[in-house]
Amino acid sequence: MQRIDRKSAAAILLPLSWSPVVESATASAPVNIALAKYWGKRDEELHLPVTDSFSVALDHHTTTTVRQAIASDDITLNSIPLPTDSPFYIRCVKFLDLARPSPSFFFSIATTNTVPTAAGLASSASGFAALTLALNTFFGWNLNRQKLSCLARLGSGSACRSVYTGFVRWQKGSSPDGSDSYAIPYDDWWPELNLAILMLSPQEKPISSRQAMRLTVETSPVYALWPEQVVKDTIAIMTGIRERNFPAFGQAVERNALMMHATMFTSTPPVCYWLEKTISSMNMVWQARKQGVELYFTMDAGPNIKLLYLQQDAQSVLSYFPQARAVTLLP
Amino acid sequence: MQRIDRKSAAAILLPLSWSPVVESATASAPVNIALAKYWGKRDEELHLPVTDSFSVALDHHTTTTVRQAIASDDITLNSIPLPTDSPFYIRCVKFLDLARPSPSFFFSIATTNTVPTAAGLASSASGFAALTLALNTFFGWNLNRQKLSCLARLGSGSACRSVYTGFVRWQKGSSPDGSDSYAIPYDDWWPELNLAILMLSPQEKPISSRQAMRLTVETSPVYALWPEQVVKDTIAIMTGIRERNFPAFGQAVERNALMMHATMFTSTPPVCYWLEKTISSMNMVWQARKQGVELYFTMDAGPNIKLLYLQQDAQSVLSYFPQARAVTLLP
Repeated sequence: MQRIDRKSAAAILLPLSWSPVVESATASAPVNIALAKYWGKRDEELHLPVTDSFSVALDHHTTTTVRQAIASDDITLNSIPLPTDSPFYIRCVKFLDLARPSPSFFFSIATTNTVPTAAGLASSASGFAALTLALNTFFGWNLNRQKLSCLARLGSGSACRSVYTGFVRWQKGSSPDGSDSYAIPYDDWWPELNLAILMLSPQEKPISSRQAMRLTVETSPVYALWPEQVVKDTIAIMTGIRERNFPAFGQAVERNALMMHATMFTSTPPVCYWLEKTISSMNMVWQARKQGVELYFTMDAGPNIKLLYLQQDAQSVLSYFPQARAVTLLP
Repeated sequence: MQRIDRKSAAAILLPLSWSPVVESATASAPVNIALAKYWGKRDEELHLPVTDSFSVALDHHTTTTVRQAIASDDITLNSIPLPTDSPFYIRCVKFLDLARPSPSFFFSIATTNTVPTAAGLASSASGFAALTLALNTFFGWNLNRQKLSCLARLGSGSACRSVYTGFVRWQKGSSPDGSDSYAIPYDDWWPELNLAILMLSPQEKPISSRQAMRLTVETSPVYALWPEQVVKDTIAIMTGIRERNFPAFGQAVERNALMMHATMFTSTPPVCYWLEKTISSMNMVWQARKQGVELYFTMDAGPNIKLLYLQQDAQSVLSYFPQARAVTLLP
C-alpha cells in the first residue's frame, strides 16, 4: 500500500472507511489568491511550508467529480482527458494513491476550472481541494475541515487554503508529520475590497512554481530574509484588514509579492515570470498611485497581475486598466 | 569660503594654488560601467559608499574644458547652455565651489558626452572626473590620481572610478573624512571581454539614482543583505577575471545587478527603472544562455542593458540582439 509512505496522510486516513459509499461524488473549491505568499518548503514530500501564508478566496471554482473506474485512473480536465504521461496526471495519481483502497482500485476524475490552468491563478490549489472534498464524500470519511485541509495540502501546498472561503491563514505548524500545518479562516471580512485580474498571458509557465520555489530556497541570497519578512507582512495585512487601513494593507501585499519575485531574480540561474506587459502594468499601477488612486497589486509565480482596490476606486482603476477583469471575492 | 565646509576637499585643496596657471584646460575621462555596483552611501555629503564597487572603463568619454568666466558660472553640456535653475547646473556649481578661489571668481565649463545624459550610462561619473582633471590642470595643482579620485568623488560617487581606465575598484575606506575612499586600478586585463549596450530608452529617468539609492537604503528590507553580497560578488568578479572564468564572472555580475534592482523593487514606494523592453531583453539573454551562448548582462539605475560576452561569442550575441551597440572597453 503506497499510502502508508506518506505519514501524515496515513495518520488521518488509516482509521477510515476504504469503500465508496456513493456512486459518484462532486465537490467544488474556490481559487485562492495569496496575499502573503507560500514560498519555500521545509518538507518537499509533505508540502510543509517555511512560513505561514495568507489568502483570499475568489468566486472562481474548480468542480470535481469522483467515480470508480475499471482498468486505470482516468482524469479529465475541462472535458479533455489528461495524457497518462503528463506531469499533472502523474501528480494526481500520486495523490489518489493516498486514498486508493487497493492497487486494483481505479478512479475516474472529472474536473473543470473556470480559470486557465497553470497561468498563475492557482487552479492546482482549488483542484486538489475540490478533489479532497469529493473523495471525502465518495468514501464517506466525514473528516473535519482541519483534516481536509491537511489532506489537500498533500496534493498542492496552497490547496490547504482552498477548503475555506474568505480570508484564510495557513499556519505553517511545527510538527514533522504536518499534522499542525493546515489552514484556518480569518474571522473578518472586508466587503469593499475589490480584486481584478490582468490576464496578461494564459500560456503555460516556463518553469513550474514548485521548481522555482526549490531553486530559490537553494540559491537565492535574498531568501534568507524571506521568513522574517512574511511574518511582518502577514501581521501588516491582518492588521490592515482589521483596521480597514487600505494603504497599509496594500503596501504589505505588494511588497510581499515583489519580495517573492526578488528571491527569484536573484536565484542562480535567475527565474523570471515577468513579461513585457507585466512590467508596464506594474509601472502603470505605480503611476496611478502617484496620481492619487489607491491601487496595489499582487502577483504569483506567473506573469499575471491581480489588482487590489476599494469599491470606491473601481471606476478609476478600470479607466487605467480597461482590460482588467473584476472578480468577486468570496466571503 | 564655501569650500572649507567640505572637509575632505579642504584637506586636499587648502595647501594648493588658487590661481589659474593656464587660460583654459581640457581633460577627458572615460565612462565606467559598474560590475559590482555602488549602491548606498554612508555619508551623503562626501559620497562615501557603504561598500566597495568594481567597474570597467568604456571607450566613451566626457571631455571638459575649464576657463574663467566674467559674471557668473556658465556651463554648457553638448554645446547647450544649462539653465541656471536646472538640477545639474546647481550640482556642478556646488562642486565648483570647492575649487573657486573667491566668491567673485566664476567658471566657464564646456562639456561634451559621447553618450546620452541621464540614461543610466553614468555620464555624471565621466563628467565629474573630466571636470576634476581639467581643474587640476587649470590651477596647476599636480595632484596624484588618488587625490583626484577623492575629489571627483565629491561631484558624483562613481566619478572616482573614472580617473582610471581598465578595471577599477573603488575601495570604500573607513575614515569619516573620506580620505581613504578612492579608486585603485585592478592589475589585470581581459582582452577577450566584450560589452554591448542595448539602448532601450534615452529618456530621462523617473527618479534620480541618488534619490533611489537613498530611498532603498532607508526602506528596503533587502538592503540588509546588500553589503555582504557586494563583497562576495566583487571577490567572484575579480577571481573570474584572474582565472578567465567567464561563467563565474558573468554570474556574479548579473546577480549583483539584479540584487540591486531587487532592493529597489522592495522599497516603499517601489522603485522600478525597467521598461517592457528591459524585461524582454533579460528574458532573451536567459534564453540565449539556455541555448548555449555564454551571455550575461548588467544594468544600472536605468532601463538599459549592458551585455557581457567573450569575443568568440560576439556573432551569436549579435544574432540575438541585432540592435546592440558593441562598445570598446578601455584597458
